[in-house]
Amino acid sequence: MYNFCNRLAVRSHLILAPHHSHPAPLPMESALFSSSPLSAFVPRSPPSLASRPLRLLSLPFSLLIHHSPPPRGGPPLLPRRLLRRFSPAAYADADAAAASAAESRSSGDRVVARPSSELRMGRPGGSGTGVAGDEKLRSLRELFARPDVAIDAYIIPSQDAHQSEFIAECFMRRAYLTGFTGSAGTAVVTKEKAALWTDGRYFLQAEKQLSPDWILMRSGNQGVPTTSEWLNDVLPAGCRIGIDPFLFSHDAAEELKEAISKKNHELILIKDFNLVDEIWKSRPKPPGKPTRVHDIKYAGVDVLSKLSSLRSVLVENGCTAIVISMLDEVAWLLNMRGSDVPNSPVFYSYLIVEISHATLFVDNNKVTPGVLDHLKSAGVELKPYEEILSEVESLAAKGAKLWLDTSCVNAAIVSIFRSACERHFTRLATKSRKQLNNGASSDLISIKSEDIRNGIPNGLYKVSPVAIAKAVKNKAEIEGMKNSHLRDAAALSEFWCWMEQEVKNNLTLTEVAVADKLFEFRKQQEGFIDTSFDTISGYGANGAVIHYKPTSDSCSFVGTDNLFLLDSGGQYVDGTTDITRTVHFGEPSAWQKECFTRVLQGHIALDQAIFPERMPGFVLDVLARSSLWKVGLDYRHGTGHGVGAALNVHEGPQSISFRFGNLTALQNGMIVSNEPGYYEDHSFGIRIENLLLVKEVDLPNSYGGIGFLGFEKLTFVPIQSKLIDTSLLSPMEIKWVNDYHSQVWEKVSPLVNVAVRDWLWRNTSHAACWTLKSRGKMRTQLMSTCLILSISMFARPIKQQSPPSYSFVLEPEKSYALEVKKRVFLRINL
Amino acid sequence: MYNFCNRLAVRSHLILAPHHSHPAPLPMESALFSSSPLSAFVPRSPPSLASRPLRLLSLPFSLLIHHSPPPRGGPPLLPRRLLRRFSPAAYADADAAAASAAESRSSGDRVVARPSSELRMGRPGGSGTGVAGDEKLRSLRELFARPDVAIDAYIIPSQDAHQSEFIAECFMRRAYLTGFTGSAGTAVVTKEKAALWTDGRYFLQAEKQLSPDWILMRSGNQGVPTTSEWLNDVLPAGCRIGIDPFLFSHDAAEELKEAISKKNHELILIKDFNLVDEIWKSRPKPPGKPTRVHDIKYAGVDVLSKLSSLRSVLVENGCTAIVISMLDEVAWLLNMRGSDVPNSPVFYSYLIVEISHATLFVDNNKVTPGVLDHLKSAGVELKPYEEILSEVESLAAKGAKLWLDTSCVNAAIVSIFRSACERHFTRLATKSRKQLNNGASSDLISIKSEDIRNGIPNGLYKVSPVAIAKAVKNKAEIEGMKNSHLRDAAALSEFWCWMEQEVKNNLTLTEVAVADKLFEFRKQQEGFIDTSFDTISGYGANGAVIHYKPTSDSCSFVGTDNLFLLDSGGQYVDGTTDITRTVHFGEPSAWQKECFTRVLQGHIALDQAIFPERMPGFVLDVLARSSLWKVGLDYRHGTGHGVGAALNVHEGPQSISFRFGNLTALQNGMIVSNEPGYYEDHSFGIRIENLLLVKEVDLPNSYGGIGFLGFEKLTFVPIQSKLIDTSLLSPMEIKWVNDYHSQVWEKVSPLVNVAVRDWLWRNTSHAACWTLKSRGKMRTQLMSTCLILSISMFARPIKQQSPPSYSFVLEPEKSYALEVKKRVFLRINL
Repeated sequence: MYNFCNRLAVRSHLILAPHHSHPAPLPMESALFSSSPLSAFVPRSPPSLASRPLRLLSLPFSLLIHHSPPPRGGPPLLPRRLLRRFSPAAYADADAAAASAAESRSSGDRVVARPSSELRMGRPGGSGTGVAGDEKLRSLRELFARPDVAIDAYIIPSQDAHQSEFIAECFMRRAYLTGFTGSAGTAVVTKEKAALWTDGRYFLQAEKQLSPDWILMRSGNQGVPTTSEWLNDVLPAGCRIGIDPFLFSHDAAEELKEAISKKNHELILIKDFNLVDEIWKSRPKPPGKPTRVHDIKYAGVDVLSKLSSLRSVLVENGCTAIVISMLDEVAWLLNMRGSDVPNSPVFYSYLIVEISHATLFVDNNKVTPGVLDHLKSAGVELKPYEEILSEVESLAAKGAKLWLDTSCVNAAIVSIFRSACERHFTRLATKSRKQLNNGASSDLISIKSEDIRNGIPNGLYKVSPVAIAKAVKNKAEIEGMKNSHLRDAAALSEFWCWMEQEVKNNLTLTEVAVADKLFEFRKQQEGFIDTSFDTISGYGANGAVIHYKPTSDSCSFVGTDNLFLLDSGGQYVDGTTDITRTVHFGEPSAWQKECFTRVLQGHIALDQAIFPERMPGFVLDVLARSSLWKVGLDYRHGTGHGVGAALNVHEGPQSISFRFGNLTALQNGMIVSNEPGYYEDHSFGIRIENLLLVKEVDLPNSYGGIGFLGFEKLTFVPIQSKLIDTSLLSPMEIKWVNDYHSQVWEKVSPLVNVAVRDWLWRNTSHAACWTLKSRGKMRTQLMSTCLILSISMFARPIKQQSPPSYSFVLEPEKSYALEVKKRVFLRINL
Repeated sequence: MYNFCNRLAVRSHLILAPHHSHPAPLPMESALFSSSPLSAFVPRSPPSLASRPLRLLSLPFSLLIHHSPPPRGGPPLLPRRLLRRFSPAAYADADAAAASAAESRSSGDRVVARPSSELRMGRPGGSGTGVAGDEKLRSLRELFARPDVAIDAYIIPSQDAHQSEFIAECFMRRAYLTGFTGSAGTAVVTKEKAALWTDGRYFLQAEKQLSPDWILMRSGNQGVPTTSEWLNDVLPAGCRIGIDPFLFSHDAAEELKEAISKKNHELILIKDFNLVDEIWKSRPKPPGKPTRVHDIKYAGVDVLSKLSSLRSVLVENGCTAIVISMLDEVAWLLNMRGSDVPNSPVFYSYLIVEISHATLFVDNNKVTPGVLDHLKSAGVELKPYEEILSEVESLAAKGAKLWLDTSCVNAAIVSIFRSACERHFTRLATKSRKQLNNGASSDLISIKSEDIRNGIPNGLYKVSPVAIAKAVKNKAEIEGMKNSHLRDAAALSEFWCWMEQEVKNNLTLTEVAVADKLFEFRKQQEGFIDTSFDTISGYGANGAVIHYKPTSDSCSFVGTDNLFLLDSGGQYVDGTTDITRTVHFGEPSAWQKECFTRVLQGHIALDQAIFPERMPGFVLDVLARSSLWKVGLDYRHGTGHGVGAALNVHEGPQSISFRFGNLTALQNGMIVSNEPGYYEDHSFGIRIENLLLVKEVDLPNSYGGIGFLGFEKLTFVPIQSKLIDTSLLSPMEIKWVNDYHSQVWEKVSPLVNVAVRDWLWRNTSHAACWTLKSRGKMRTQLMSTCLILSISMFARPIKQQSPPSYSFVLEPEKSYALEVKKRVFLRINL
């Protein structure tokens, strides 16, 4: 599934679409050039520019503010990080996964192994119609006047405290307050007004769910202000605007602060309580599922080694500690997994790694004795989740040099550290000044930076070193990914075999029922834990809605008249999968075949790419689009995202995208998706997605001693040959399809039963891949060289002889179409 | 010819090589999105980031400083602009054109229509051996002590005052002082030491030419400091380091100032005289050739219209005037041409365009009565070249809002404007403070920006709007480019026809003689004026030296045992050409053919690219490299540069390069080169270069309403088929070669005599393009589908029938090789 939100990529840089929106100057981030998983801890690149502030901050603290002036008339050019929150629809490709996640969460605390149909039942906060909303607003506004609050407005975003893609129900405050359950939305409540921002995906849903007291802000529509523009507009100058600083990354909070400062508003960080929680009477409990140890046979590297590598990086960067707040980074570093949120095997926690010890902030009830032993043996001690702030404060008191990735660490943590540092600085400055007054020369009045460094705490604001270490998979992780992909392929083969029959017999087969059935097949596979995101099951026009998520009460039947797009993935004990296939159960039109074939050509071109090491992914993006561009087509999402090993289905820092702001180099051991597509509004959608492992390739030459990289496929499920217009393919591309299907057959056929084996054979042997229709001249051999070539290359040799030759089995019951374009004399063995 | 220096691209942003050097954060510049040549004046994009400072500077002036910290152990990550001057070899692909230019200049003031052999005679400043150098150094150092100088060191760069690629002899001060005549080099003289920095191309030459008093700094070698590092090292803190501010762009001077400030050195701008000129007794006179009017039939748009468009941009940007210092911008804007420097039809001048009038600063003797009338009718008045500074000062006095492109306008102009502004600011500030003291509130002590804008002058520091307007060619310019390319193709066909014979008969045919002969052929073409750069004529291993320039005393003979690379271009009255062909006059090896074919595949892939509008060129660069990457090969230069219309052979702002810092979008009407290559050290070099016109394409679809662009070829000279390994080519690629050669035949054959026509026929009809060797089975038709297809596509149909069929003429005297890879039954009409 494409990471439409690209939240993870956003963590480390600003992303703007170059040709689909007004271009703007792009600050870039430098790439990291490690090759081994552990050396990946070591960021060898030079510091980045404004977008990722990297500096040992000497006091007084300057603000980390990024801003690009918006062009006239165009969409706002705020960093995507902010945009996502405050005007999500400015990016049409906002997160499909998040969309489905928000709704799946509403089923309560059942987060594992549920069929899709169950995921859409129940909504937190009731229907949202009627006066319930008013009551909530009234209660919320009453809090504004409390002396410990004292604000004029409150912003309620969709986030949790960890910038998670999937969040637990108890953190769905925006959905509770507004009644609007879509995944993307920001609520802003002033004393008089209440407004909700969401994007085009959710306009209808929001209209239905919001009470009349809410103003719906249709983000992306002409003239619709951003949240901060609106606040600057409706409030008199100099107001106090409150946020829960846990729910904003530090960088996002700083940008908000900057934006509202134009009207002299003050940003109030209310960190002791969340105002929505205060009025949420039957708020669900925070998830408390036990965590588990991620077996070393899947993790590959033990916790002590990982911590030791991380500590080396800290030392090299002059740091004494780091706060890790991204849940997948904590899980990866500690070889632990959990089930606090749907789709991602993570658990709510923070981790502080210091040079001599490490502390995991997690609820005790999540830690089984086995996990406790595991942590103890790695020297990790436990503290309650809530103690993170006091610990950060005491770190400052101890003079810590703290590494904070301010793009994801929340504003509560960063601000408490900063104010603690400031207190220490003031103390030291006073002390120094006293000493200076006792005779020191006046031009030494400024405190030497070494003194500051030695005497008081400070912060290194830089992208987390864990992100790149986690992205570069080790041998065991790769092994696990490969194995889980084969089991996933078996489940998918069983599913498609079933589906092919079912769709012809069952006229009321819904998109949701299809997703449920797929879940059933996956569930039967060993080590299956959960879906890795909510299945995108879109028939016909629904497939063209990139963010489509069917609901049981409003989805389509799947038929034989149009294309069916299925994007799904599984979480297994040893790996994470993500695959999209598009199929037609009837007769595709020539246009659909052309579009499918061009998407396939892009998929093949990227799959086959060989490229020098140190190359950012965006350089390759054009390969996936060229075949579409040739006829004026394109798709509005990136081509590839990173994938975790038995972790989040979307992870950074690498990506393959037309947004060329991400300079992270692709590295040996990284995993990326390859998912070009084409979407025709109100008609159909096409996407073909495999996961790829970035791998060193052995070439006959090595220009300038540079290593070259390529991709190894992880996904092995047939691509529907019926949809391929072979006349568009080059011999190389035809060979690619043949070779791929040969591999699919070899790898997956041993894992399925006889009936599925037959389906697999038919879908990998190409007996039905090409069609040849007699025009009364079949025996006179007047045929197109072009087509003949296609056939000979396309058909996987059923019987391979020595020396190689190809025999084609033309099945009598099939219909064979032959386009004769150029005349040659040629005979075929019939 | 590839713009290895990329000076023009550098004008507007920093460029760093992503995979051939350590990557660094890249500030980016926004693209301009105009479609018509005149609307191209209007920069619609948002302002750029730090790399291209764009701001209405409110006083006091902040410095425009760009710096990225160097990584440990890697090459210095200073902006390329600085690097080029102070450590050129950090970029191995520094400017071949500049290299040849520097030497060509040494022939004195003969700048038009000279054979290449003449270009290398004579060297300014004598041989450089012996004591002549010492004498010059002594004289120079004597000046250091003069009260109006008072410096401790002086830096002598290679530049003229206009950042020109080719400069007049009188400005070759570094060559005069040091005796070293290579194109790239910076001399630094302190009271005790003298050092010259140059790069790997020139180590041997510099060793020969420098006197023992000079230290040779081998830039790019391990441990070799930059000029500023060296100055900081050898001088005691707090020295005065002098430069001629005319020879540094403002941005470069600021960077230098910042670098030396680390040792508290002060940068002294000595603008009233150049110290080298003071000691240069027989310094050549500045060039004084008359200018000419560039006919409106070639220029397309008259001067008044161009000025009017420019003025609209000034008004929109709140400016009242602009200083244009790039010589090609002046020439383009005024529809004038000159011959002050070799290879570029420009003349030394500055132009100031104000809202109501315009002033050209040029020596009177260059202005003929015809030119004078032309200028008068456009309302352009004349002033002497030297008055530029006083005019800028008086503009400031008049309160001008002045547009200055500080990446190319020299430091003398910018600094005089700034200090004039500062004087006015101080005056105004004093006045305001007085008013405020008479009762105004203290928090109004800062002067309102509107007051400043209305009351005093200021500067807009932004890339020149003329650059993009010039880059987008109008109809007449395109017409002229097309016509001149056809005449150039005729000359090249005559040349290659001659060469093919000559090389077999003349065993002492030198690379220089070849270049001279080519010059002869070009000279015979109507409207020919000059070469557009010194011909790169490299046989065998010399072809692998990307910067190779043969000299009559040290060049190779051209033979039949290796590849011969010829990169050349012409200046015509109506257009500018630039073409590279690589040929073999004997039997190329299989490896040479493979390399050539892969370069050709890259050339074809870029030529055939279709891409959405608003796409920067670097996105396409990968297309030109993929075929080489597949086998671990690459080339260390970019793929395309802009080309002027009857102007500079290298122009910005667009480029197609692996350096992805240049965000300028390719636009309809731009011209770029397409020149992938492959270079095997000490063995051979390959480059295939055509010029391409960026053109809107009409496609069956238009996704999201976006326009798509493609390329139209301007260059029509055969590509040697002998060097193509057809088995590597796809049918599409084979078709491309066929179609291209068909076009070459159609367009060029009417322009040449019978003998050359025959050569052209042989080299475009592919009779020799494919070889087919009988293995005794030719009549039994056992052949490879693949090869058959290749042949059928590759051979331009000699006799086309209806319905289409292909007949192959297998010539009996030829040797035919047939690789049978796969068996089909097939018959060919013999």
